[in-house]
Amino acid sequence: MMVTVSRKAHFNAAHRLYRIDWSNEKNHTVFGKCSNPNYHGHNYELVVSVTGKIDKETGYVIDMKVLKDLIKEEVEDAFDHKNLNLDVEAFKNLNPTAENIVVVIYNKLRSRIKSNLKLKVTLYETPRNFVSYSGE
Amino acid sequence: MMVTVSRKAHFNAAHRLYRIDWSNEKNHTVFGKCSNPNYHGHNYELVVSVTGKIDKETGYVIDMKVLKDLIKEEVEDAFDHKNLNLDVEAFKNLNPTAENIVVVIYNKLRSRIKSNLKLKVTLYETPRNFVSYSGE
Amino acid sequence: MMVTVSRKAHFNAAHRLYRIDWSNEKNHTVFGKCSNPNYHGHNYELVVSVTGKIDKETGYVIDMKVLKDLIKEEVEDAFDHKNLNLDVEAFKNLNPTAENIVVVIYNKLRSRIKSNLKLKVTLYETPRNFVSYSGE
Amino acid sequence: MMVTVSRKAHFNAAHRLYRIDWSNEKNHTVFGKCSNPNYHGHNYELVVSVTGKIDKETGYVIDMKVLKDLIKEEVEDAFDHKNLNLDVEAFKNLNPTAENIVVVIYNKLRSRIKSNLKLKVTLYETPRNFVSYSGE
Amino acid sequence: MMVTVSRKAHFNAAHRLYRIDWSNEKNHTVFGKCSNPNYHGHNYELVVSVTGKIDKETGYVIDMKVLKDLIKEEVEDAFDHKNLNLDVEAFKNLNPTAENIVVVIYNKLRSRIKSNLKLKVTLYETPRNFVSYSGE
Amino acid sequence: MMVTVSRKAHFNAAHRLYRIDWSNEKNHTVFGKCSNPNYHGHNYELVVSVTGKIDKETGYVIDMKVLKDLIKEEVEDAFDHKNLNLDVEAFKNLNPTAENIVVVIYNKLRSRIKSNLKLKVTLYETPRNFVSYSGE
Repeated sequence: MMVTVSRKAHFNAAHRLYRIDWSNEKNHTVFGKCSNPNYHGHNYELVVSVTGKIDKETGYVIDMKVLKDLIKEEVEDAFDHKNLNLDVEAFKNLNPTAENIVVVIYNKLRSRIKSNLKLKVTLYETPRNFVSYSGE
Repeated sequence: MMVTVSRKAHFNAAHRLYRIDWSNEKNHTVFGKCSNPNYHGHNYELVVSVTGKIDKETGYVIDMKVLKDLIKEEVEDAFDHKNLNLDVEAFKNLNPTAENIVVVIYNKLRSRIKSNLKLKVTLYETPRNFVSYSGE
Repeated sequence: MMVTVSRKAHFNAAHRLYRIDWSNEKNHTVFGKCSNPNYHGHNYELVVSVTGKIDKETGYVIDMKVLKDLIKEEVEDAFDHKNLNLDVEAFKNLNPTAENIVVVIYNKLRSRIKSNLKLKVTLYETPRNFVSYSGE
Repeated sequence: MMVTVSRKAHFNAAHRLYRIDWSNEKNHTVFGKCSNPNYHGHNYELVVSVTGKIDKETGYVIDMKVLKDLIKEEVEDAFDHKNLNLDVEAFKNLNPTAENIVVVIYNKLRSRIKSNLKLKVTLYETPRNFVSYSGE
Repeated sequence: MMVTVSRKAHFNAAHRLYRIDWSNEKNHTVFGKCSNPNYHGHNYELVVSVTGKIDKETGYVIDMKVLKDLIKEEVEDAFDHKNLNLDVEAFKNLNPTAENIVVVIYNKLRSRIKSNLKLKVTLYETPRNFVSYSGE
Repeated sequence: MMVTVSRKAHFNAAHRLYRIDWSNEKNHTVFGKCSNPNYHGHNYELVVSVTGKIDKETGYVIDMKVLKDLIKEEVEDAFDHKNLNLDVEAFKNLNPTAENIVVVIYNKLRSRIKSNLKLKVTLYETPRNFVSYSGE
């Protein structure tokens, strides 16, 4: 009896799509206005989904409060009101596309959640663009 | 050619997280403010998803009107404007966590939907907390 | 140059529509299923709107962080995960209709916000039912 | 490392549920008010999801701009502000149920997206009714 | 102490922007794709707002159930799953722009709501286009 | 017979709350994490509302297509994927708080909309924080 528990969170951040080993010109050619050297930004919405068996004792798969606090610690405190390219170590040499951000978030959370629980992360860059990753 | 058809519904209910075999103190220690003895409540949003082949005759997997009426009968009429702990038989001895509620709803609907159709139920307790179950 | 600044918040609570001076029968006749003696509940969404001049120094009408903390102190801490009828002094003798709740919230906030700022409070009981009050 | 990239789009269209080989009476018996001979309509919301490996060069699974333009060309330009029964070739002899529409959209997009990328299409007929198809 | 009570409703309808006294060509020149002779359609979302004093007896400005039933009778039953141009008397000689529709709805409801209550109607044609009218 | 017509739009931008005549330290003291020198960002949602009489000829207060194009020209092309502090002339010496941004947008649009039409602009910085201005 596997149930999936999901929790939404959000953070506001600046970024630019940018490869440090490419010129601004090449970055602009490939990434267009998303590569503005002065950055742009988003209200990122995050859905973290954890799948496992219901604990008979508590009726929980995972305590939503614990999950909320874990997302705050690993994601919100690290990314909120930040410039992803400049302020976040993981993107110093990694282009902060939505795809790369969702994998970074997944990896940060994966190491903190018990291995018998499955994890999936969905990241909305805008209400119309979103990505998801479940480690497969 | 398997298509999934989903229908949203909702109900408003009171509940408390509570094990009848535990003291109020122990309930409070484990479940915090969610165990307020006077109850709190939610606008529960429900998504019922049915997967199967398209009927060549009608172009339907399932008649959405039939699905809507089934959800009304099995879920809305049973849970809406109720106290889950006191008014709903299923939770007399079962802690009404979102996880347990979604399994109860799944089981009620599963017995009413043809076995060649797959079923998945997603339940939003708040816009930020939700759970899903597909009988696996 | 009057600008309106709005902040959303939410709280989850149980309630029943109920006049303490009426019988359960009369309450049921007038308020229907909303008067279930065992209570039901909602995810209340709140919008607090403050109108005033932009402070030339800061560019703020009101610091959104201050407004957020004020709503938390006066509304969320007082109402969240509570039974409005039993746990909240203001509704001991006042029927907690959406209309009465929004007036109570307005009065709590009005006394904490400078009198040269106009105040309006909107309260969603469900996504389809909401009320607003601006002290007029 | 498979990531899913999703893009939302929309179109507004008229339709009626209708089999051309049935009488209006039989159509009405089976499809009810959805078979009004004068048509009714919807704001259809569409989510197109593409799953594949992240390109190491760009950090993209698929360039969201390319996906957006493809949806515009194949779906929005073909369906928006149209009568699905009368103006869209695919539904001349196919009942435009949500199920049939999502399969038609899937097939149009499938032929334009590289075969190593998986495709899933979700179509909202209303905020409460939606369908999805992934070619399986 | 004036409180505003609002209720959301919806209906799905086909329409075309069209003046019966103009040629199809002139209609197309002025209204573009919105004048497709075969119609297009929308999920119309409606917000009906009623302002008045709180009744001391009930704590209501207006019984939300009464308001809901009135909207069903006057608007949903008359417009849902209809072609506004062909099936609704009010638009036989009136171009069903969002502006004209909202005035028609306002007038239908105004005659059914007590004159000491103020009325405002907001109509969403799409999530991005909406209109409102309060009889002034 | 005054009807209000509203159109939603959006833009994604980076900014920091910052007075150029204050030190980074003072900016940080007053504006907190919103003053991160490396910027953060938002998906800004915009609602532009125009109030006037319905044109008897067209049934429009204002052609929504004209309004949409005007917003694109004056707001989206100027602000989208930009750094408000660095890339937008209006904020070179003006702190880009939500309050100041909404006034700047209002003034840009006011000069392009006929003076017999009333204008109101609402700007969502996040789904929970928003401001509005109508030139009064």
